[in-house]
Amino acid sequence: MSKIAVIGAGSVAFSMSLIQDFALTKGLSGCTVTFMDINQDRLNMVYSLASRYIKELDMDLNLEKTTSREEAIREADFVINTVKVDGYDFMEAEREIAEKHGYYRGIDDKVSDYYGGFFAYKQLNFFLDLARDVERISPNAWFMQVSNPVFEGTNIIARETGLKVAGFCHGAQGYKDIVKILKLNPEEVEAQVVGLNHCNWLTRFLYRGNNAYPLIDEWIEKESENYWKSDEYLHNPWGYHITPAAVEMYKLYGVFPVGDSVRSVSPWWFNTDLVTKEKYFSSGGPDSEVGWTMYLFGLKMRLRMMEELAKDEKTPITEKLPPRPSGEVIVPFIDSIINNKKEKLILNIPNNGAVEGLPDDVVVEIPVTVGKDTLEREKIGRLPNRLMLHIIIPRWLRMEIVLQAFRERDKKSILLMLMEDHRTKSLEQVEALIEDILSQPWNGSAKEHYR
Amino acid sequence: MSKIAVIGAGSVAFSMSLIQDFALTKGLSGCTVTFMDINQDRLNMVYSLASRYIKELDMDLNLEKTTSREEAIREADFVINTVKVDGYDFMEAEREIAEKHGYYRGIDDKVSDYYGGFFAYKQLNFFLDLARDVERISPNAWFMQVSNPVFEGTNIIARETGLKVAGFCHGAQGYKDIVKILKLNPEEVEAQVVGLNHCNWLTRFLYRGNNAYPLIDEWIEKESENYWKSDEYLHNPWGYHITPAAVEMYKLYGVFPVGDSVRSVSPWWFNTDLVTKEKYFSSGGPDSEVGWTMYLFGLKMRLRMMEELAKDEKTPITEKLPPRPSGEVIVPFIDSIINNKKEKLILNIPNNGAVEGLPDDVVVEIPVTVGKDTLEREKIGRLPNRLMLHIIIPRWLRMEIVLQAFRERDKKSILLMLMEDHRTKSLEQVEALIEDILSQPWNGSAKEHYR
Repeated sequence: MSKIAVIGAGSVAFSMSLIQDFALTKGLSGCTVTFMDINQDRLNMVYSLASRYIKELDMDLNLEKTTSREEAIREADFVINTVKVDGYDFMEAEREIAEKHGYYRGIDDKVSDYYGGFFAYKQLNFFLDLARDVERISPNAWFMQVSNPVFEGTNIIARETGLKVAGFCHGAQGYKDIVKILKLNPEEVEAQVVGLNHCNWLTRFLYRGNNAYPLIDEWIEKESENYWKSDEYLHNPWGYHITPAAVEMYKLYGVFPVGDSVRSVSPWWFNTDLVTKEKYFSSGGPDSEVGWTMYLFGLKMRLRMMEELAKDEKTPITEKLPPRPSGEVIVPFIDSIINNKKEKLILNIPNNGAVEGLPDDVVVEIPVTVGKDTLEREKIGRLPNRLMLHIIIPRWLRMEIVLQAFRERDKKSILLMLMEDHRTKSLEQVEALIEDILSQPWNGSAKEHYR
Repeated sequence: MSKIAVIGAGSVAFSMSLIQDFALTKGLSGCTVTFMDINQDRLNMVYSLASRYIKELDMDLNLEKTTSREEAIREADFVINTVKVDGYDFMEAEREIAEKHGYYRGIDDKVSDYYGGFFAYKQLNFFLDLARDVERISPNAWFMQVSNPVFEGTNIIARETGLKVAGFCHGAQGYKDIVKILKLNPEEVEAQVVGLNHCNWLTRFLYRGNNAYPLIDEWIEKESENYWKSDEYLHNPWGYHITPAAVEMYKLYGVFPVGDSVRSVSPWWFNTDLVTKEKYFSSGGPDSEVGWTMYLFGLKMRLRMMEELAKDEKTPITEKLPPRPSGEVIVPFIDSIINNKKEKLILNIPNNGAVEGLPDDVVVEIPVTVGKDTLEREKIGRLPNRLMLHIIIPRWLRMEIVLQAFRERDKKSILLMLMEDHRTKSLEQVEALIEDILSQPWNGSAKEHYR
């Protein structure tokens, strides 16, 4: 009977979907799930919701809660890290500062909460600290990286510890939206999605055994214009899977982008201002001032819903949280390991030769068959050269710079990276930006760290 | 007795130094040197100068001339490629076109004649064609790449043919200028210069066995200001080895740049306009409108001097071309192979593990011990991470893009590369630039090639 520790269990972004999947995954029967958070109120709330939910669904799971990280980790077989250190507010304040220096929507990754706190300093620092605790207390546990930056985070843990580690993101599931928009029967689709976190590409797409890319081409030619005028598109900045951005990126790089790729690695000239962003995404997409405000508002609404539901013990949780899988691969991963299910899941794990042209120690996001003692990477081979040279390698390089700067406490490396930002006009601009951001009260440790 | 073929022997840039070294290298006694050029007049001139020079110096060398490439290659042991297809004029016309589109000093590599003709299309095409002839006619010959782009050129030949190949550039010798400016005794200096062509770094610098970097630091602190006011500096845009650009790059990347590195891989903000360039280089350096005009004028003067000298049979050549080694490593390389001298030379050859973090098939510029049947790479190991991430890997990536675009006839890949140029403001700007350049009469084949 395995023990699963959820670190940062009060996370509004992840707790509900985790609760859903824990309650619905029969393969976890008899397991212990330990919720851990430093925020006692959030912890109590999530614990109470989860307890009622698994009771309603008659699931046999032993729930625990604690504010002690050590206690949670002790004897854990799986440690799920969903922690977002210091939450979201400081990132918004940082974004405003960056905008004053000439950087529309900030200097973060284009996914608005991917780094934050001076290129993810807070997150990376915490991840490593947590991972070292796990290594000391439960060295055989799986370290499961869920909060962002998944790419940089999974890499640093894989390189700096001896832990088994995997990163998780539902973004790659975005290919299912393409299937839906093309009105294909999902049962007859075979898709391969490959790349790096938030940089996923539809490298194989078959329908009834035949190449289905011509169906995409046909949709673009005949239906895209109408679709982009439809309410389904216009009312949902988050419905980003066949946006004009995705179609243009497909034309530029020759492979269709999946999920968050259109956010994170769409080219700079799609993202210069709101008017431009609106050409490529509905309402400028998830990371425009419109889309991102919606997201942050959504998080607040979700928290309020959770708080009210926790207080209102008469309403069944299932009314608000329908008993269906969340679509996240976190719990399926645990299920597949515990029960040796050999399910194929899209995971972030060290490359080890799966993608040609990337070093073994770079974490890639690829299909992996997961069993009790095995992770069998799908052999990917070579990606198209244009995609490798203009997207995959530059994104890999950015990860290396963020990690090198963090490890070597190298502020100059961050400066050099920002100098290559297309919005940068001068050295003085970047120097002022860096000093301004590092002088904020929430960046005290970062300021000390980066010399 | 070896045969050495010089292809493009009429080259004004290289023929005089080749003649010098041939005439002075006693180890080549008895060898045959075959000059080949499609320009009969130039060929005759160079042949006549060389014949007189080796006679004056009493060197035992068998000289031949031919306009037939096949004849030159036949039974050759060494094929030296100095060809610059179509010369320099079209590159200047292209630079002007690029300037009209907003690209000061053109879209070439910052070294003004490195690519030209739409990212070296003419050169790469010719190199491959020549190399395939060599492979067919004299498959055991050494292919010696001398004309630019040495980095891209040596790579494509190494990858696409089975030839033994090395690229040659005297730039890495630039560390000797540092030794001279610091007033050190060259005999007591030990230097290691490592990188890619035109991207060389002083990775080891010892004086009398001790680290000599503090001597550079001291020079910067105490003497640089005066030096940069001296006539020696101010009157020579080509004396670029301890320029403010070099010192600033040393501060940015932590390692001192050598030779042409300050030209090719100095950051964009050193090179935005003439006024800015003048801050970093004397008269804006070799590639400003001042320095480059001087260079082109110098080539014309040299050609006129050669023509006059060829006509004037009474003046000894040695009066105009003093009998001393040119400093190029082309002939020393041949000498070291023929006579198994095991001399250490700085060459461009495939990495094969010498520099960590670069693939085996990337041509690096490193010290190599050259013998009859051996090329022994100096084991370099890891370069400093900041240098790798911000300079070496991006320059490697640019080479890969230029070659991938060439091989796959991929105009879009060139477009994507230009979009990342810091001077680019929009997609339309790059599209117009590309069409304008490809529509020029001298780019007819390139226009057909890149689809």
